[in-house]
Amino acid sequence: MVENFADRLLGAIDAAGAPVCVGLDPRAERLPDALRGGAGALPLDAIRTFCLGVLDAVAGVAPAVKPQIACFEALGPAGYELYFELVAEARRRGLLVIGDVKRSDIGSSAELYARGHLAADPAPDAITVNAYLGDDTLAPFVEAAAAAGKGLFALVRTSNPSAPQVQDVTDANGATVYEHVADLVAAAGADERLIGARGYSAVGAVVGATYPDEACRLRERMPQQIFLVPGYGAQGATAGDCAAAFKADGTGAIVNASRSVIYAFADERYAGRPWQDAVADAARRFADDVAGAVGR
Amino acid sequence: MVENFADRLLGAIDAAGAPVCVGLDPRAERLPDALRGGAGALPLDAIRTFCLGVLDAVAGVAPAVKPQIACFEALGPAGYELYFELVAEARRRGLLVIGDVKRSDIGSSAELYARGHLAADPAPDAITVNAYLGDDTLAPFVEAAAAAGKGLFALVRTSNPSAPQVQDVTDANGATVYEHVADLVAAAGADERLIGARGYSAVGAVVGATYPDEACRLRERMPQQIFLVPGYGAQGATAGDCAAAFKADGTGAIVNASRSVIYAFADERYAGRPWQDAVADAARRFADDVAGAVGR
Repeated sequence: MVENFADRLLGAIDAAGAPVCVGLDPRAERLPDALRGGAGALPLDAIRTFCLGVLDAVAGVAPAVKPQIACFEALGPAGYELYFELVAEARRRGLLVIGDVKRSDIGSSAELYARGHLAADPAPDAITVNAYLGDDTLAPFVEAAAAAGKGLFALVRTSNPSAPQVQDVTDANGATVYEHVADLVAAAGADERLIGARGYSAVGAVVGATYPDEACRLRERMPQQIFLVPGYGAQGATAGDCAAAFKADGTGAIVNASRSVIYAFADERYAGRPWQDAVADAARRFADDVAGAVGR
Repeated sequence: MVENFADRLLGAIDAAGAPVCVGLDPRAERLPDALRGGAGALPLDAIRTFCLGVLDAVAGVAPAVKPQIACFEALGPAGYELYFELVAEARRRGLLVIGDVKRSDIGSSAELYARGHLAADPAPDAITVNAYLGDDTLAPFVEAAAAAGKGLFALVRTSNPSAPQVQDVTDANGATVYEHVADLVAAAGADERLIGARGYSAVGAVVGATYPDEACRLRERMPQQIFLVPGYGAQGATAGDCAAAFKADGTGAIVNASRSVIYAFADERYAGRPWQDAVADAARRFADDVAGAVGR
């Protein structure tokens, strides 16, 4: 019997003392000088070393990491392979892994994405999916998650500036598109196989911290969903903005920061210190900031 | 100077005499008996052989193929590598390649997806993208397409049964979500760097044949977009349904069929014949059916 993903995530957050996730978004042009190597050094090797160093720095501080597969696909097939290697390395360090893959397609293809990203070995503990094509495209991911004790975070309200263009279209009854999507995600997550001991579903929602009013409304509308909250740091949201995604008891969400943590070494504050120390310190500050704002 | 993608696609359609695309959706469980091999045979090798055979069978009949990357990701990192190998093999056979990857993310990540899927070598001639997060998530793909003479097909109206759940949400002025998305895709495609000699943009739209009324309205609304039309065959749409996606002169769309062509050998009609003959014959019938329906 596999433990429910929501229970595993909530347990890991409790153990770490902070509901935070560090995004693994490696970019060759932003690596620490110490890892750039000489002419002829392979970016892939430097990126592997960097990512392993980030995992070491954040393990024990953050309960989870979120590798962004786009960064790895940019490196070609060897980068795609590295993504799965790092999924295994993160799990080996006791980190939960949320694969940020945002996959979506009609049912017969979604089933194959689920096979490659949830049922594979190694595979992340959860992945992000795009629910805008409707619930028949979500169903194969839900089945795979239920079968393997994995989780999903379906895009409901994204953190980017042009998110409102489509997501805020409002019907004659005053319901927005993101609320329609929220309802179909909540319905998919209500399957009893997915509900953990603490009442949360293994099907969560992505709700950007850059739109706190919307996050507040969604918090009411989706009581069983854990929110994965991007937008802190480099995208401009504060810990206070993120608090809207949590319930009054401080549960119900996990906040992600990527660039503001993993590239912290470039900040003047850390001049002269080893890059991994800077990342570890930035992760600790991020964790404390969010834990403080949500009253943990 | 790279030739505009829309011009290349229209030229290839004219040369082939039919606006059709064959979807490369390989599944281990549906391979021809001749390719299943014995115990211990690797599904990956069998799938490579199958896909190369399909490319040989359809080259000269269809102007384009559309590999579905979900089928390859289901096979793990080696499958992902095979996808790019087959992109190169298809191009070597003179086929245009539309990579069905449906990528989408916030701008900084979309830029990396564009690098991995449009700017790479080998890379498809065009890819599908999901535009539901808004135009800032589309922009990096548009830039990469403009720089490399590549194309995009942005999801506007998908072919799956639950597509209407979100896509048909209608605002107070009577405009649907898919029409809002159509407008932002059309605006992104209006960039003069993308418009070819025949007036079409390198930014096209995915419009499912399973919703011909919607396709008809979108045809009016997006005069510069070439439509990639899924849904023929296994998903239930006829060539007549597909005709709604074309202009009166027979241009403006390319119809895709996947399973009904590449698994044609399983049909009684082809009993006893080599599987590649069946695929070639099914591709020819598909091309003739669509060409007839659109008056070419």
